[in-house]
Amino acid sequence: MNRIDGRAFDELRCVKITPGFAEFAEGSVLIECGHTKVLCCASVEERTPPHVPMGEGWVTAEYSMLPRANRERSRRDVSKLKLSPRSAEIQRLVGRSLRAAVDMKKLGEHTITIDCDVLQGDGGTRTTSVTGGYIALALACRKLVEAGRISQNPLKGYVAGISAGIVDDRVLLDLCYEEDSRAMVDLNCIMNEQGELIELQGTGEGRTFTVDEQQELVRLCAKGVKELIAIQKEILEQ
Amino acid sequence: MNRIDGRAFDELRCVKITPGFAEFAEGSVLIECGHTKVLCCASVEERTPPHVPMGEGWVTAEYSMLPRANRERSRRDVSKLKLSPRSAEIQRLVGRSLRAAVDMKKLGEHTITIDCDVLQGDGGTRTTSVTGGYIALALACRKLVEAGRISQNPLKGYVAGISAGIVDDRVLLDLCYEEDSRAMVDLNCIMNEQGELIELQGTGEGRTFTVDEQQELVRLCAKGVKELIAIQKEILEQ
Amino acid sequence: MNRIDGRAFDELRCVKITPGFAEFAEGSVLIECGHTKVLCCASVEERTPPHVPMGEGWVTAEYSMLPRANRERSRRDVSKLKLSPRSAEIQRLVGRSLRAAVDMKKLGEHTITIDCDVLQGDGGTRTTSVTGGYIALALACRKLVEAGRISQNPLKGYVAGISAGIVDDRVLLDLCYEEDSRAMVDLNCIMNEQGELIELQGTGEGRTFTVDEQQELVRLCAKGVKELIAIQKEILEQ
Amino acid sequence: MNRIDGRAFDELRCVKITPGFAEFAEGSVLIECGHTKVLCCASVEERTPPHVPMGEGWVTAEYSMLPRANRERSRRDVSKLKLSPRSAEIQRLVGRSLRAAVDMKKLGEHTITIDCDVLQGDGGTRTTSVTGGYIALALACRKLVEAGRISQNPLKGYVAGISAGIVDDRVLLDLCYEEDSRAMVDLNCIMNEQGELIELQGTGEGRTFTVDEQQELVRLCAKGVKELIAIQKEILEQ
Amino acid sequence: MNRIDGRAFDELRCVKITPGFAEFAEGSVLIECGHTKVLCCASVEERTPPHVPMGEGWVTAEYSMLPRANRERSRRDVSKLKLSPRSAEIQRLVGRSLRAAVDMKKLGEHTITIDCDVLQGDGGTRTTSVTGGYIALALACRKLVEAGRISQNPLKGYVAGISAGIVDDRVLLDLCYEEDSRAMVDLNCIMNEQGELIELQGTGEGRTFTVDEQQELVRLCAKGVKELIAIQKEILEQ
Amino acid sequence: MNRIDGRAFDELRCVKITPGFAEFAEGSVLIECGHTKVLCCASVEERTPPHVPMGEGWVTAEYSMLPRANRERSRRDVSKLKLSPRSAEIQRLVGRSLRAAVDMKKLGEHTITIDCDVLQGDGGTRTTSVTGGYIALALACRKLVEAGRISQNPLKGYVAGISAGIVDDRVLLDLCYEEDSRAMVDLNCIMNEQGELIELQGTGEGRTFTVDEQQELVRLCAKGVKELIAIQKEILEQ
Repeated sequence: MNRIDGRAFDELRCVKITPGFAEFAEGSVLIECGHTKVLCCASVEERTPPHVPMGEGWVTAEYSMLPRANRERSRRDVSKLKLSPRSAEIQRLVGRSLRAAVDMKKLGEHTITIDCDVLQGDGGTRTTSVTGGYIALALACRKLVEAGRISQNPLKGYVAGISAGIVDDRVLLDLCYEEDSRAMVDLNCIMNEQGELIELQGTGEGRTFTVDEQQELVRLCAKGVKELIAIQKEILEQ
Repeated sequence: MNRIDGRAFDELRCVKITPGFAEFAEGSVLIECGHTKVLCCASVEERTPPHVPMGEGWVTAEYSMLPRANRERSRRDVSKLKLSPRSAEIQRLVGRSLRAAVDMKKLGEHTITIDCDVLQGDGGTRTTSVTGGYIALALACRKLVEAGRISQNPLKGYVAGISAGIVDDRVLLDLCYEEDSRAMVDLNCIMNEQGELIELQGTGEGRTFTVDEQQELVRLCAKGVKELIAIQKEILEQ
Repeated sequence: MNRIDGRAFDELRCVKITPGFAEFAEGSVLIECGHTKVLCCASVEERTPPHVPMGEGWVTAEYSMLPRANRERSRRDVSKLKLSPRSAEIQRLVGRSLRAAVDMKKLGEHTITIDCDVLQGDGGTRTTSVTGGYIALALACRKLVEAGRISQNPLKGYVAGISAGIVDDRVLLDLCYEEDSRAMVDLNCIMNEQGELIELQGTGEGRTFTVDEQQELVRLCAKGVKELIAIQKEILEQ
Repeated sequence: MNRIDGRAFDELRCVKITPGFAEFAEGSVLIECGHTKVLCCASVEERTPPHVPMGEGWVTAEYSMLPRANRERSRRDVSKLKLSPRSAEIQRLVGRSLRAAVDMKKLGEHTITIDCDVLQGDGGTRTTSVTGGYIALALACRKLVEAGRISQNPLKGYVAGISAGIVDDRVLLDLCYEEDSRAMVDLNCIMNEQGELIELQGTGEGRTFTVDEQQELVRLCAKGVKELIAIQKEILEQ
Repeated sequence: MNRIDGRAFDELRCVKITPGFAEFAEGSVLIECGHTKVLCCASVEERTPPHVPMGEGWVTAEYSMLPRANRERSRRDVSKLKLSPRSAEIQRLVGRSLRAAVDMKKLGEHTITIDCDVLQGDGGTRTTSVTGGYIALALACRKLVEAGRISQNPLKGYVAGISAGIVDDRVLLDLCYEEDSRAMVDLNCIMNEQGELIELQGTGEGRTFTVDEQQELVRLCAKGVKELIAIQKEILEQ
Repeated sequence: MNRIDGRAFDELRCVKITPGFAEFAEGSVLIECGHTKVLCCASVEERTPPHVPMGEGWVTAEYSMLPRANRERSRRDVSKLKLSPRSAEIQRLVGRSLRAAVDMKKLGEHTITIDCDVLQGDGGTRTTSVTGGYIALALACRKLVEAGRISQNPLKGYVAGISAGIVDDRVLLDLCYEEDSRAMVDLNCIMNEQGELIELQGTGEGRTFTVDEQQELVRLCAKGVKELIAIQKEILEQ
């Protein structure tokens, strides 16, 4: 049985990254994974929220979909006067994932906000937001160091995310929308370069899954994250 | 090294369940896990949201904390005019978990809403909401069958949830607030009676974690869920 | 003609009070009057709103019903993005009533917020909130004195509330929901130990009422408040 | 001791009523009591809210203050995204009071909304809203009958409201702002032509009050309502 | 062909101005243009928004319609929890227009808010708000000077606004509602005493319009503004 | 004196148009005018709002800026729970402008929503939204015809928009952000291919402007619109 777009079961979609897409942001990237397109912008402010210890920094994320990112137009959050609960869940995940990449003491009293705006959604927008958001964050950190606003780069290491799932009882890496909408089980992993976990979210949407299946999905994700970090490095070390 | 409340590393907190605490709900339970107290109420309505296929049912959940459930008073959501993003994340988890327990065709055109209101929060409120919410759901389903409103009980099997974490490099089951606030890694599992996974959420709040550590935490959770399902059975089969 | 639950026309429902139900609040009580259950929590903060004179304190109240407190589930305020107008009216009443019990100069620069959350509503929730809220307030004041945060107890005397009404042309004390929904006239009194009035709200829902009838209802309430204050004393002086 | 504006203790402020101030409303009146100015407009719609029995009508009220109605400008409700709790309390009172004047079966399936917008506030705006709102309501009912949209006038009798209070231990009728802001006790009465009560709200803002004092305040209000109904009649029967 | 109210094509509606209608505002006016009635109140505060340079002042406007200002009742903004987009557009226009009349350095660190509340709307409410708002602003400025709160009057000159439109291919000045609702083209001008433009908004609602037509409409407006400024002068210089 | 980017006073910025940028929308375009980038998506729905006559269609627009579209990050509308008044003003302009291009009878009972999301803002975003929105609209109309959902193309002709302004007393076409922020006068024109006006908005932000100056700005805009329509044609007729 073949995948809809001809990929092997453990093959990522084509990834295209355009750094600097938004010129005014301290760091920005347009990341495309297959037909999914997310604009990630990192903005730096010289103040931190009240819960942050003095002298330390903070990293947070916001996630939103444009109204016509999907097959059907959806109403804007502001016209419903509420942040979509799905967006709330996702932006908390992205924020936690990117905070794990940063030494808050080295960042000093700066807040970096990563805005992840989905221009087009075709599956995997939350993990694409982490992978792209990391690059925007890294570009902004580099700019802070170059401008002498902080003395050391606060990044602790690469972070990327990918999903895997069980479709028709086969495990598949990096589900596109058509696969995702038929998946029985869906698992998202955020990992570092060493293959260690930062965030793990698994959902048995169509059926329960065994611990063995869960492990197989994590292994698949580990392969995907490794490849994504290689791509991040190409962009950031060129 | 001992736990703050003297428990073994793989020991649940004391669980106390009061079914029928809210008399008007079709099903209700006050569930106490240590100092955490959650009131779970199941309400049945004869209509379903638009996305549900005709002839099928729906299960959804809402989660909220009373303003003085915690050590500090927090403002009510309504006075901030927004559902707390944390509550949004949790109620999506509880809803997905309890939907996994129900055959929507057998439920027929009914919506069951599980309200999980935290009267006191001392760690583990999201998994306690699933464990208690399942009992409220089961009581409501039983009432529907007894009243002849549906012909077959739509429940597919027991579902419960528990957390485990890594504190001072030791894995611990069922973290209380003091442990949770110092945990490096935190993992929530929702499982069925067969030890299969329904939802899995792991977060490296203080550090990354290896796949081996993740597996150890899942094993610990499986033990806890087994014990919780035994308690659910006692209540429901008495 | 007998009342639905066999009470005499001037008889209170059974009152059950559980102080300390919420362990983190400076003062808390679960008060049950018949099937009505209200959790009252008093929280102390070291700051006052802008309109309060320097050196003085403030007491305020918030009132809310859990979604399944009643025979039908109601939507949460936050999902409608507005405080229910009925809750707004009631929490203003509770706040004014409890402020009347406190010497704001003795309280000093503290705000005490009394959260009254109705877990189950079977009539009389607003007056039950005042009666229970007073105990929570008293427990919090005592704790402030014991902790040396204020030098003198700021309470000026006991305060409690009760309703009376005209049902089938008979005056009845402490209406339960079934009586309340058929009442022609409904009157709520908040009084002190001397039988003096603090708040008085009378409504001719089904018909007008004479000044004589109004006086008879106030007399009935005075009897009820006297008994409630005796119960408050038992709890607070034990 | 004299009142600030030279009135006797039991004397109303000068009342000026301009019917038809808003030309498009089915009924409207600009009512001025001293410096208080309220524009009351009655609007008729051919549908009723869900809770109203088929074939019957409904009367409701909305109350709001213009931002510069008072000595200080206040922010608009919409800019705070919430109905002021005080307005919520008042519009519930006005709605209940005016519903008491109407036979809902005779009104048939119409909703009459009475908008009470305070152009200038100098004390007594809630009772002025009832007194003026009644005239707007009566004008709208008359228009419905004249247009043959209903066959019988649904009004059951006159309704008006007034306040009285205790200032410097003297009872005074119809408090202006300066008196109101110093009042120890404040009582609002809504009554019919027979001197029977429809709504009664008394508040011990500065001190408690005895049942005797309460009765004296009601007697004073009865005198005021009688005079206000005479003025309503002049307008409506001319 | 005659206009509905018998006016010549270039004739203003009857203008009636009642200064001091709202007694507590620093400046106020009830302005009536035909059946359009707008209450304009100017309120002075001793602080400015963050974007204003130190030592300078600010002028802003708010615009709202009472629910029954029009032929049909409309819901209040607060009950929809959003400022009507039309009101947002208009209050930005009024604010910009009146700021053009003020020397912000002479105003010093004061904010003047002009509240324009439409009591009755019969066309031309936005330009009537500017014309009336200017008088309220001028009265407030005069009061500031008289009270010694600023040393020089900050007004730079008169400002007024009027609309013109194309109805049945004829250009008409100062459209009333019936004309406005049939107009193909609608143009609003805010001008000073010298006939110079401050704001210009033209809309081809029913068809496009040529540059020549646009110029003719501007000329017509210039005539109207001249007459309105003469009326403003009468009020302010009497 | 030279312009900051070396353009002649009557020269447009470089325009780049990418049709089909959002693949799921019925019509879409990424339009870049200098550094301004707007994503315009047209979405078709088979229903119309209540005010639209039966058998006719409707065109509406929504406008929003991504949080980091500008030099400073701004908070999202949803986190402030209100549509920015500036966005409200602009989306009304875009909607009116594009409706002028459509024969609503030929469109039949469809609503086309044009979402204009500013990915980067460097001046002229409102007119760029009209120019790009027209292309998205045209692409969607073409798709409706090709799919046989409507029988005739409902477009009546090309529509585009441009701004001009007075900077340092010189008239300039198509202001970029740096020019715009120093402009004394700013004028936006929406025109058709015949050079007729559809919308005209002029603002004297820094000083008043004469009718002659206004005419000169309109002439400049007419030149710009002509060139923009030529570019639209290239895209749509290729």
